[in-house]
Amino acid sequence: MAAHITISIDAMGGDNGPSTVLDGLAHSHDQNQDIRFLLFGDEADLEKQLKKHSRLSNAVELIHADTAVAMDTKPTQALRKRDGTSMWAAIEAVKEGRANAVVSAGNTGALMAMSRMSLGMMSSIDRPAIAAMWPCQTGRSIVLDVGANVEASASHLLDFAIMGRACAMVLFHKEDPSIGLLNIGSEDLKGHSSIREAAEVLKDPSLRLNYVGFVEGDDISAGTVDVVVTDGFTGNVALKTAEGTARLIGTFVRDSFSQSLLTKLGALFAGSAFKSLRERLDPGTVNGGPFMGLNGLVVKSHGGTDANGYASAVNVAIELARGDFVNRMAKTVERVHTALEQGDSMVADAEFTSAQQQTKKAAVS
Amino acid sequence: MAAHITISIDAMGGDNGPSTVLDGLAHSHDQNQDIRFLLFGDEADLEKQLKKHSRLSNAVELIHADTAVAMDTKPTQALRKRDGTSMWAAIEAVKEGRANAVVSAGNTGALMAMSRMSLGMMSSIDRPAIAAMWPCQTGRSIVLDVGANVEASASHLLDFAIMGRACAMVLFHKEDPSIGLLNIGSEDLKGHSSIREAAEVLKDPSLRLNYVGFVEGDDISAGTVDVVVTDGFTGNVALKTAEGTARLIGTFVRDSFSQSLLTKLGALFAGSAFKSLRERLDPGTVNGGPFMGLNGLVVKSHGGTDANGYASAVNVAIELARGDFVNRMAKTVERVHTALEQGDSMVADAEFTSAQQQTKKAAVS
Repeated sequence: MAAHITISIDAMGGDNGPSTVLDGLAHSHDQNQDIRFLLFGDEADLEKQLKKHSRLSNAVELIHADTAVAMDTKPTQALRKRDGTSMWAAIEAVKEGRANAVVSAGNTGALMAMSRMSLGMMSSIDRPAIAAMWPCQTGRSIVLDVGANVEASASHLLDFAIMGRACAMVLFHKEDPSIGLLNIGSEDLKGHSSIREAAEVLKDPSLRLNYVGFVEGDDISAGTVDVVVTDGFTGNVALKTAEGTARLIGTFVRDSFSQSLLTKLGALFAGSAFKSLRERLDPGTVNGGPFMGLNGLVVKSHGGTDANGYASAVNVAIELARGDFVNRMAKTVERVHTALEQGDSMVADAEFTSAQQQTKKAAVS
Repeated sequence: MAAHITISIDAMGGDNGPSTVLDGLAHSHDQNQDIRFLLFGDEADLEKQLKKHSRLSNAVELIHADTAVAMDTKPTQALRKRDGTSMWAAIEAVKEGRANAVVSAGNTGALMAMSRMSLGMMSSIDRPAIAAMWPCQTGRSIVLDVGANVEASASHLLDFAIMGRACAMVLFHKEDPSIGLLNIGSEDLKGHSSIREAAEVLKDPSLRLNYVGFVEGDDISAGTVDVVVTDGFTGNVALKTAEGTARLIGTFVRDSFSQSLLTKLGALFAGSAFKSLRERLDPGTVNGGPFMGLNGLVVKSHGGTDANGYASAVNVAIELARGDFVNRMAKTVERVHTALEQGDSMVADAEFTSAQQQTKKAAVS
């Protein structure tokens, strides 16, 4: 299966234009030579850019698109003017089965609106979600929703938990990823009613979800659970707060090491430490936010990312496509929804079997 | 006025017991020798602890309290059993005018419930809020609410803005601190209706608030505004997410510098850089969360803080007491509420005059 994976690329999306996209693709191609790319955008421009990447050219098929969706276009407007845009064409390639996933660094709202229109929502999922890969003490965790919905009811939170679980199974090769609901600590104030209701459902043993309970903001980076579930407002604020904190500490580090001759000398000796620190703090290393709940795989790259960051987003798309993410998620959703309706823990369960197979495959590869 | 400032201390609150509290007080006393402390707690224990701090003893009056509020007591239960607790007695000292402020590292919910009962809410303020001092690129900013309320209506958010403004005037010696409403970036989804409504009111020029608009999570650490307004759920998640991120990066720094002989040598040379970095990353340096909206000054210290952190919380209480915070806030609240009711920008305005006086005082001191 891996030999046939094709990723559709909206080459015109992002703040830095197609040259960053192509640099990123070249990085990704070096690590994943079996993957093919469909490149949507201005053909003349892309052809010129491709000349810089001779190795990549063989893995790429160019498809001309007349226009690009601007970063500040409203989603409704983007939908109206979708025809001829590189974003719409790139998504449609997934719908038509010509690609396993689409990656775009373009306008998030437009990408979500077009993806919903083209691919449609997964059966029995009401609301899509955007997931973030979050660096943590144990590696990576998944946080969702980080911005697709401002509010989330208990049943939306349950769906986010299921979808996050499916994502963690594929990305972390875990059979039974742990799930936490983001809440606040104060005893008397334990969260909104929707969170308390969702917690009651998630606890239901017949759903067989590895739900560990409420987690707080600092549990995300601690890696207390594999999947942190929250509404899109809270998740988006948390994500950007973490980015801002990392940036602030970066300033503190630079200030501290440039304060005297001795500290500068120390920084010189420890050059490789700074390099590895910079790499670990680079938000690009965890770039790539999969859209959850659609009948197709869409991965959003940060608009302002560099080539390394773009490669990370493409690699997330590749990992998820290799793990047959959308079908796996559909099975998980079906299993849990059936159990919810029937209160039956003996539901035929393709989800666990495929998880075991994948884990075995991961272990030998 | 400064010569008469007395701070009431709940010496039994916190995870680390009275010895940390007294170590912290000794730090604060060294920087603020004109401040007197009323120390509430187990007299025999406190007397023994005080022997270690001979300089501090002269600034302290011990007042025996039979019991302490446990960290896991529910607020309602704490209220019922308040008599004889060090927390209640320490708060009552503020109500009775024997102290200008109270500091406790104890149970947050209990401290808020007891403070409301003893001191009462400020006239025309519905909901109290807890403020956090947040380190940022420009120094410190104030974020509120970080946990007193799970939800906030538009009028609560407006009150938080007014109270945060008053706090920033006193702590940052600014005449007209800037205010932002925490929101998410996605265009179509600009926040909950309460946030959009609050924004409309905050823009009203007759209120003369320096409202700059919506800010996002990363603007908090960037120091885009002096006061970041949000509901207690989002604020608490953001605060703990930032703490968790700082802890994670601390791990990254340690890992990076211990990876080879050369990086270890660099770390040795740059010892002072690590020291200053550690100090800047120490959450204790920004410890001290004032309760807003009460008829009296209450400052919550983090329960698990060390002596330096406790001293920071005491210093926040001292700064706010010196700046006559509660009266200044009452004036700001009255001015804005009157303007709201009358739509009149010519309201007699003691707030600005006193801000100017204070700024001048700060400039010469």
